[in-house]
Amino acid sequence: MTESDILLSHLDADGILRLTLNDTRRRNALSEAMLGALDRAFAAAAADAAVRVVVLAANGPAFCAGHDLKELTAGRAAPDGGKAYFAKIITLCSGVMQSIVTCPKPVIAEVTGVATAAGCQLVASCDLAIAATDARFSTPGVHIGLFCSTPMVALSRNVANKHAMEMLLTGDMVPAARAAEIGLVNHAVAPETVTEATMAMARKIASKSSLTLATGKRAFYEQREMPLAQAYDQASAVMVENMLARDAEEGIGAFIEKRAPQWQDR
Amino acid sequence: MTESDILLSHLDADGILRLTLNDTRRRNALSEAMLGALDRAFAAAAADAAVRVVVLAANGPAFCAGHDLKELTAGRAAPDGGKAYFAKIITLCSGVMQSIVTCPKPVIAEVTGVATAAGCQLVASCDLAIAATDARFSTPGVHIGLFCSTPMVALSRNVANKHAMEMLLTGDMVPAARAAEIGLVNHAVAPETVTEATMAMARKIASKSSLTLATGKRAFYEQREMPLAQAYDQASAVMVENMLARDAEEGIGAFIEKRAPQWQDR
Amino acid sequence: MTESDILLSHLDADGILRLTLNDTRRRNALSEAMLGALDRAFAAAAADAAVRVVVLAANGPAFCAGHDLKELTAGRAAPDGGKAYFAKIITLCSGVMQSIVTCPKPVIAEVTGVATAAGCQLVASCDLAIAATDARFSTPGVHIGLFCSTPMVALSRNVANKHAMEMLLTGDMVPAARAAEIGLVNHAVAPETVTEATMAMARKIASKSSLTLATGKRAFYEQREMPLAQAYDQASAVMVENMLARDAEEGIGAFIEKRAPQWQDR
Repeated sequence: MTESDILLSHLDADGILRLTLNDTRRRNALSEAMLGALDRAFAAAAADAAVRVVVLAANGPAFCAGHDLKELTAGRAAPDGGKAYFAKIITLCSGVMQSIVTCPKPVIAEVTGVATAAGCQLVASCDLAIAATDARFSTPGVHIGLFCSTPMVALSRNVANKHAMEMLLTGDMVPAARAAEIGLVNHAVAPETVTEATMAMARKIASKSSLTLATGKRAFYEQREMPLAQAYDQASAVMVENMLARDAEEGIGAFIEKRAPQWQDR
Repeated sequence: MTESDILLSHLDADGILRLTLNDTRRRNALSEAMLGALDRAFAAAAADAAVRVVVLAANGPAFCAGHDLKELTAGRAAPDGGKAYFAKIITLCSGVMQSIVTCPKPVIAEVTGVATAAGCQLVASCDLAIAATDARFSTPGVHIGLFCSTPMVALSRNVANKHAMEMLLTGDMVPAARAAEIGLVNHAVAPETVTEATMAMARKIASKSSLTLATGKRAFYEQREMPLAQAYDQASAVMVENMLARDAEEGIGAFIEKRAPQWQDR
Repeated sequence: MTESDILLSHLDADGILRLTLNDTRRRNALSEAMLGALDRAFAAAAADAAVRVVVLAANGPAFCAGHDLKELTAGRAAPDGGKAYFAKIITLCSGVMQSIVTCPKPVIAEVTGVATAAGCQLVASCDLAIAATDARFSTPGVHIGLFCSTPMVALSRNVANKHAMEMLLTGDMVPAARAAEIGLVNHAVAPETVTEATMAMARKIASKSSLTLATGKRAFYEQREMPLAQAYDQASAVMVENMLARDAEEGIGAFIEKRAPQWQDR
């Protein structure tokens, strides 16, 4: 399959880019090819002014099965036992996950099927996630002697410590309703409505000023890692700059005049 | 209206200070006057030994609508386009929010009506919050091109990342029951009982040693920003000092002797 | 009672070490003797390759009542009013709590009865916790003038700020179902099944590679305190090392070959 086959890409008139994992034969595993395709897709989405929101979806019974274990195992044949290859893949994967966080466009996971290991990390790395009620989540690395150490970075920034630890230490499957309860996804909805619900949320966000969304998303993750006083200093500076931007002047003016705003960027 | 009209203040015999937002005509917006009034009220509450607990309540259909957009917009007439004025207001507002956190007295929000933008931040900044079931919460800045960047500092220290992001990116209203589920408020209770429930909680806390409450509240927010080992070092030092205070000697003695304690500070 | 009487210890054939608090006369208080016994027990568990998982349980109506107030009060007779003795006990206690976190074996609390003050901290410090539905939790230090400052270090790393503050400022008892909702325990189960449920979870985890569990648990708490990019750098390095370990090679091989893995460490 070519890259365009394993990761489908479609941009609609509302500025919503749907990226669909489509390597169903390999349960959408994060093979080197898939990681490369995602890396390029998020870089392109970040740079393309026509993209306002990204939805990450999947074809087939698995949302994403995590790393491609056969490919990794083949890497062991190298003289260093695979060390350089493993490091390359893990670094590439961690880069993809962080490119979702640093992407100036909001990213929404539309989760159908099972999302396991780095596939679960993919969901946790998105800003928002809507899951079908029959979707399931796990970090099952302990079953194969390989703790889900990089997935836990994203997982533990979404759910409480004991909930993360239960997933990581037992490898148990978590149904979508429980994933919603613990904060791994925003909502669990009927499977036949998951695309509709995700696209409705995407359209709502796509109708906002892209400049404002980019400003806010970046500030969110930056301030989250700061002590309170520093976070307020940083967010206050962001707020003042945002007030001076044309889209805020237009948006506030439209609000006061009770009319719809016209964003500069569309 | 004078300052004493837009922010009502009443201290009862139990040491509970009720501050009531009362600028109903402006939906209790955080105008420069209101921010000044809150700033002075929390400084006074911190300094007044007669105040044991603060309850922040509101009159009218809005708990607090956030910043006063007309006032901010008027600021644009200045030669710098409003930059200095916006910075002044945002700094004042962030100072008020942090003065709630650093106030040595526990602060409880009693939320009726809608709490939006910096109004939602006000609730998030309080130590505790009881909401009427018909109260609602949002950070709707994206609707007007002005991301709720300072509100998110407080919001994201109360709720999980995906829950915060959903409020910030969509601007959607969150009903009180959902706010309780995600941790933005402690409890949602019937509207006709919200004052009773809040005051019962306030009275319970007001019956404790003020010295102990002040020691603990300060230590809570300090240790929360530290790595585990450093947090234990700090909290252990606080614990030893607290043990040596007269109120702990009295409280432990009373417990062992099965009698009511007599705190030094009342 | 001797040390072996107040803290029972039993290692089963699956590598599950059950430590049972057994000073029922003192409601399993964390007396100097009990803290010493726990300190030695966790150090021994960490060092013993036969121990794969630790379960911390209790006999009697109290899981653990926190510090031994009579013993602490007796310490006041010293020339320094007890300062050196208090510091010794609090340091010992904080050390025990941190030794649970740094123990390379997963630690599961099996909570029956009431877990209060440092007893609640003990539960919060464990990686996982299963509670009987009639178990209850509180940090009631405010009742006796001694804020639960060290317990809050563990508590506030498990539950949302407002939930922690409600427990700390009111001292109210939290039933097991609510403790599960807010993330203080993983699950609340019928009292007659709590041991069965806890042991089932322990056996599941004990069947994994101990090397993998130790690697992952250590990395979890380390990365949790880091900014995102640093956390990914650290976790990526852990992941590559883990891939090169014999248990991962065996586990992945067994998975691909659809057979049960044979861990090196058993």
